[in-house]
Amino acid sequence: EWPVNSKIPTERELCTLFKVSRITVRQALSELEQEGYLYRKQGRGTFVTAPKIEQRLSHFYSFSEEIRDMGYSPSSRMLDFRIVKADESVANNLGLNRGDPVYSIRRLRLANEEPFAIENSFVPCDVCPGLSSEDISSKGLYNTMNINYGLIPNEAVETFEAIAIDAENAHYLNVSRNSPGLLLERVTRADQTIVEYCHSIIRGDRYKYQILLK
Amino acid sequence: EWPVNSKIPTERELCTLFKVSRITVRQALSELEQEGYLYRKQGRGTFVTAPKIEQRLSHFYSFSEEIRDMGYSPSSRMLDFRIVKADESVANNLGLNRGDPVYSIRRLRLANEEPFAIENSFVPCDVCPGLSSEDISSKGLYNTMNINYGLIPNEAVETFEAIAIDAENAHYLNVSRNSPGLLLERVTRADQTIVEYCHSIIRGDRYKYQILLK
Repeated sequence: EWPVNSKIPTERELCTLFKVSRITVRQALSELEQEGYLYRKQGRGTFVTAPKIEQRLSHFYSFSEEIRDMGYSPSSRMLDFRIVKADESVANNLGLNRGDPVYSIRRLRLANEEPFAIENSFVPCDVCPGLSSEDISSKGLYNTMNINYGLIPNEAVETFEAIAIDAENAHYLNVSRNSPGLLLERVTRADQTIVEYCHSIIRGDRYKYQILLK
Repeated sequence: EWPVNSKIPTERELCTLFKVSRITVRQALSELEQEGYLYRKQGRGTFVTAPKIEQRLSHFYSFSEEIRDMGYSPSSRMLDFRIVKADESVANNLGLNRGDPVYSIRRLRLANEEPFAIENSFVPCDVCPGLSSEDISSKGLYNTMNINYGLIPNEAVETFEAIAIDAENAHYLNVSRNSPGLLLERVTRADQTIVEYCHSIIRGDRYKYQILLK
């Protein structure tokens, strides 16, 4: 058991350590690499991969709570906060008219200081008048809705699809351009009120989803 | 309203048709392209995209049934059928010992004759003794389990992650290498019996998933 991102011993060292042949070591390393437990860096050696964050799709969740439940330390960085006019897609998802004012909130999500998602939330100005970037940064969006506006987000429709991460998002997520990612769209309700449309780009190498179907 | 994959009129023709300026037409086309409704082919023109197949994750499903429910015509092509020894991952997922015999079934899944997924199913030989490629091709895997073995698959745990489609799968799926895709893993049970471990590669440009969370 080696820690995440640590360099493991060389093939030669592993042969001595486990008293096995070079062929056996190579085969084991190759299998562990294919299964995603190890990664190689050209000329640097072989390293231990961080396990993917596995999100269960069984109930309404917030990123921060789930990340914490999985034993990681969640954090987020506000990249942009402003009021904009809803475009066609935002308006349709929020049940507004095109041009209605919405908060546009762009946050980088991290687990143990490592970025795993860029979240673009749109919240109708009518639903949370006077919403501030500071409140969201200190308490989180859903807690702010709850504490400041008496809204308890408790239902969401999510869609997932596979995408190639574009240059701008790749920069923030610290991955190469066109890396595999998930586009997650969410329409969130607090009882019957639509309180958020969210459009997130999630790193494919750090996140997976699990669901039980009956 | 133009049919899927049809070529739409040129910018000039659209200006005349809708009595609007070239700038307006360009902006509209650019938005429709970004939203995924249109695609351009170098020197050929602009075409209508097929809408993504949207799979609801609300209950146990089979590809064929769901595809049919969405109004597409499902089909599948058997790429490989053989008995193999379970490797570590297959054995773990099926609750077998490494080396136990399993059917390895590789199928290309199509909707309206267009490939959208490669499905690799592993079924313990003990569970379906004498399973044949012909039965699966004519009736489907789950129907064969039901009719020939009295097993009704009715529960599954699925995990999804984003991947880059490798050269071999890209060839079958008719996309470029490293296109965005989903890796879907499924462990299927018929009541308490594990009847299948399935590992599917799904085209990111043709498939999306939807779920309601409460």
